[in-house]
Amino acid sequence: MPVRSGRLDQARVSVGGRVTVLTGGVGGAKLVLGLTRVMPPGQITAIINTGDDFRHLGLWVSPDIDTLLYTLSGRSNEERGWGRAGETWNFIDALRSLGGEDWFALGDGDLALHVERTRRLAQGDSLSAISAAFAQAWGLTTHFLPMSDDGIATFIDTAGGELAFQRYFVEHRCQPAATGIRFVGAAAAKPAPGVLEAITGADTDAIIIAPSNPFLSIDPILAVPAIADALRRTSAPCIAVSPIVGGQAVKGPTVKLMTELGIAITPVAIASHYEGIIDALLIDQRDLDVGPTVALPHAYADTLMKTLADRERVARAALSLAREISQR
Amino acid sequence: MPVRSGRLDQARVSVGGRVTVLTGGVGGAKLVLGLTRVMPPGQITAIINTGDDFRHLGLWVSPDIDTLLYTLSGRSNEERGWGRAGETWNFIDALRSLGGEDWFALGDGDLALHVERTRRLAQGDSLSAISAAFAQAWGLTTHFLPMSDDGIATFIDTAGGELAFQRYFVEHRCQPAATGIRFVGAAAAKPAPGVLEAITGADTDAIIIAPSNPFLSIDPILAVPAIADALRRTSAPCIAVSPIVGGQAVKGPTVKLMTELGIAITPVAIASHYEGIIDALLIDQRDLDVGPTVALPHAYADTLMKTLADRERVARAALSLAREISQR
Repeated sequence: MPVRSGRLDQARVSVGGRVTVLTGGVGGAKLVLGLTRVMPPGQITAIINTGDDFRHLGLWVSPDIDTLLYTLSGRSNEERGWGRAGETWNFIDALRSLGGEDWFALGDGDLALHVERTRRLAQGDSLSAISAAFAQAWGLTTHFLPMSDDGIATFIDTAGGELAFQRYFVEHRCQPAATGIRFVGAAAAKPAPGVLEAITGADTDAIIIAPSNPFLSIDPILAVPAIADALRRTSAPCIAVSPIVGGQAVKGPTVKLMTELGIAITPVAIASHYEGIIDALLIDQRDLDVGPTVALPHAYADTLMKTLADRERVARAALSLAREISQR
Repeated sequence: MPVRSGRLDQARVSVGGRVTVLTGGVGGAKLVLGLTRVMPPGQITAIINTGDDFRHLGLWVSPDIDTLLYTLSGRSNEERGWGRAGETWNFIDALRSLGGEDWFALGDGDLALHVERTRRLAQGDSLSAISAAFAQAWGLTTHFLPMSDDGIATFIDTAGGELAFQRYFVEHRCQPAATGIRFVGAAAAKPAPGVLEAITGADTDAIIIAPSNPFLSIDPILAVPAIADALRRTSAPCIAVSPIVGGQAVKGPTVKLMTELGIAITPVAIASHYEGIIDALLIDQRDLDVGPTVALPHAYADTLMKTLADRERVARAALSLAREISQR
């Protein structure tokens, strides 16, 4: 029962109250950027994956939080697709000359976030307080909420043994075939302060799951029991933007991983993955006639986000779908 | 009873065995560089001041060790007089944008030493082992010995209260008048492995105190009781290169500090300061007719080290004086 089987009516876009987005890395950040451009300031809360976080060289690195900080503040490197614009690499070059670990490329400017975050964590500040302070220092009005202040670490099971996420993702470039994924610490983790309120609060008009990797970026968030529970019981409409575009993923290891895990590369598989959590799915128009029909309410749009206008368009389409759901 | 009241005979320069140098920052590093160029490889041991070390932003910074690493490996910034050549500043710019502490300028490449040092300290490696590993990674043949693996911190007493060294030196640019200097932790500190052997060992032919600040760079080393004791009982000749050139110090707060502490800006004051430790003093030729005569054996040379040739000349003069002392 699709809400609409073609393009959404672009005029019907406004959502009056607050919107909460579950997001991972680059793709999710693009959608949040789009939302900031079509919504009033201060109305967006991002619940951000921390399963990719890790301690490296003694520093606490939170890649998805930083990607969102860079993207929303206009500091992201658009050409390379990750990290900061105008980045330099003197640190990692010097570290290499000392025989230090250089498999994870830390840019010189990027290091400031890791050093300052680590310093504040050591003095007892929470990751959520630090993330909010960074966003505020850069003048951002989006509320930054790491999914949890407790440590949660994504591990990939492979034929060659278990790999910590960044070892799998960066050092091994997703080459080993994945046989399973674990989120160590998630079952016992508490949501960060504000997370449950952002999902179940009366002024939350919509919850959007960004087109981030469902298995690596969104599942760690859903693996925190109280977050999944809040999503199931919230009265706000929850929609997901499918990360599949024309039977492919836009970026990253989504398709390879889905294939290895025996999951079809279709919107139906995405809808099934988020069953019980989402009320509707925004599907790329290229997947309109591909595979079986999604049973859940859904809509189609061009979800590819290359330009700023693309990001605004997908944001509007997601808000529009959420509004239609809430008006049913 | 001067050894020689004029220029030293430049032909008589060789010292056959090992030479140990007590050194602080930039001036000391210049002399060690000169020594490496007039001596066979592997014969020099540098005992390096660690009183300036401090934990900053959670990272362990060892300025004098790093200055020596940069100077001997050809990485030092000659124009600026400190830090690395070709340094970039993206880290500190980004840190400033986050509201972090930016009074101590950490260059992007420089950071690699602090991050890697901190990481290795956290895993239980000693400062001396780490310093040796860094020197080896950069192909240096000089033996790097921090004076101690125990924490020793220089504090400056001022009218406005006590200041940690880097706060005094960098943040306050030596502006507050000093009333005293303390080396916290020195009395209980043990010399790093190899330090006593480098002073009292039978194959040590000479000990040279570099023309570093006697009060801020050399005194912290002498404040470790076992080091001062070893210097007093070693049979190797110990000479100092006066940091005074024509009634002035070449660089840094030496003269200001000596004035505030009521010490005359003369070679006699330097000789007096090192009394019981040194056997002879190498004095700048500009101070030949200035003030009372140094009672200790001494020699004169042009000790200003602007060029590489200058550094070699001062190194030869210091070695020559040590040799003359040992042949008496």
